[in-house]
Amino acid sequence: MSATLIDGKTVAAGLRAEVAARVTAFHAKTGRRPGLTVVLVGSDPASEVYVRNKGIQTREAGMRSDEIKLPETTTQAELLAVVQTLNADAAVDGILVQMPLPGQIDTQAIIAAIDPAKDVDGLHPVNAGRLAQGIDALVPCTPLGCMILLDKAGVAVAGANALVIGRSILVGRPVASLLLAANATVTVAHSKSRDLPALCGQADIVIAAVGRPEMVRGEWLKPGAAVIDVGINRVPKEDGKTRLVGDVHFASAVETAGVITPVPGGVGPMTIACLLQNTLTAACFRDGIDPKSL
Amino acid sequence: MSATLIDGKTVAAGLRAEVAARVTAFHAKTGRRPGLTVVLVGSDPASEVYVRNKGIQTREAGMRSDEIKLPETTTQAELLAVVQTLNADAAVDGILVQMPLPGQIDTQAIIAAIDPAKDVDGLHPVNAGRLAQGIDALVPCTPLGCMILLDKAGVAVAGANALVIGRSILVGRPVASLLLAANATVTVAHSKSRDLPALCGQADIVIAAVGRPEMVRGEWLKPGAAVIDVGINRVPKEDGKTRLVGDVHFASAVETAGVITPVPGGVGPMTIACLLQNTLTAACFRDGIDPKSL
Repeated sequence: MSATLIDGKTVAAGLRAEVAARVTAFHAKTGRRPGLTVVLVGSDPASEVYVRNKGIQTREAGMRSDEIKLPETTTQAELLAVVQTLNADAAVDGILVQMPLPGQIDTQAIIAAIDPAKDVDGLHPVNAGRLAQGIDALVPCTPLGCMILLDKAGVAVAGANALVIGRSILVGRPVASLLLAANATVTVAHSKSRDLPALCGQADIVIAAVGRPEMVRGEWLKPGAAVIDVGINRVPKEDGKTRLVGDVHFASAVETAGVITPVPGGVGPMTIACLLQNTLTAACFRDGIDPKSL
Repeated sequence: MSATLIDGKTVAAGLRAEVAARVTAFHAKTGRRPGLTVVLVGSDPASEVYVRNKGIQTREAGMRSDEIKLPETTTQAELLAVVQTLNADAAVDGILVQMPLPGQIDTQAIIAAIDPAKDVDGLHPVNAGRLAQGIDALVPCTPLGCMILLDKAGVAVAGANALVIGRSILVGRPVASLLLAANATVTVAHSKSRDLPALCGQADIVIAAVGRPEMVRGEWLKPGAAVIDVGINRVPKEDGKTRLVGDVHFASAVETAGVITPVPGGVGPMTIACLLQNTLTAACFRDGIDPKSL
């Protein structure tokens, strides 16, 4: 038996096209285009690539895209002032401060300073709280992407036993809230959990978001399980180069799972597509429009 | 085999005494006493009893206690104005708006209007989010009481498999966050969950907070499990009177569990004691004092 692959690139392309169509509807209704501003502090090459891709995809979806590049030496006060300017700018629907930030900056204080209504990363405590309480919220992009992939793969979430491995603020905890809201029975496991193989063996859905290369083995899985692999780990190859692997040992898991995301090409491509969707959602909330009406 | 009972009355009395001692230390340090203001709208008899008890216990702990009683016909705008006055009053550390509120009032809007720093019920989305993100927060009283009971009963939470039955904003979701923060492997089950008996059978800790009389049966439990029963259900007796039962079938559970809370006399008495603790915690945060230093 071999699992069906969930093609994140295709799903993400479909989502971007859907967002673009809804942006057109938003523009027709309001006369304006949703706008996303990304703030990049310093010149980390990976972050620069990521910010550039966000800009391209935002514009392709018909939205306004701005980038603010600040030097590595930017102070906390300077970055706070930038955030406050963006909070006050009516044309800005989404503010994304690219992580990681330099050491002199208190990341949590910056996140808390962003207007929750413009927090398209979904990291502000107000959004985390609204998500935890089951109220309309801006939800972190990667967990949102996981849920969309499950949906597109036709996985029945309601009533399913879902195991989330990892309890990060960025992925594990919010995806657990989303699964719970979708009526799954949700278990959150982590480094202190005993007998992870047994927990996996009972799960209809496994979300691996732990950051340990190939930790989850195919032998652990319940036959037919849906496996969403959020991990992106770079490991050495025999030839001295490196390759990307997930938190799931793909070669064994593909034999047991029913559906599975590859790494790369699974959850990864969903993140920016969900950021675009969040920007449109934020614009709708700000203009008092039901996002589902577009 | 018969489980050890966890005596909530005794634990709550101990906690109240501990809070009173820390209030004395707070007063010595700051020259002021923490203050709790309870707002009661209408004249529901059960709420009136509860508010009166809160007042008595607050004063016994050495704190300032105020009650604001408003008529059943109070409008949303009037209640919001009261909340805003209390937000602005420097002597008020804790604001508790007694639930349930009359139908003309939007409960969620009232909760969102309370200064999160004074939200001693822990229901504001900011506190829910901070709890979900593992940041210092004001935590709802009943979940806090459950954790204290587990601690006082000597239950090892780290690494344990904990099952939370029920996913309410008041109990299920926050207690799941607290258990996760204490390094349990946490499963949240609810009305859509399949095979609750099997889930119970794997749990070292069961928190029943579902509101269904005697639903959880002793035969379901893992021998030696710690059982915290949050349910308070009034059921008819044969003589036409009523009695209080929990969500756990006590007579069978006591045979299998290792430790168990009775109903009444288990979680119930903890709620006000935890409210007092939250008021002191709020006062400490507001004055920049580490609550653990008292």
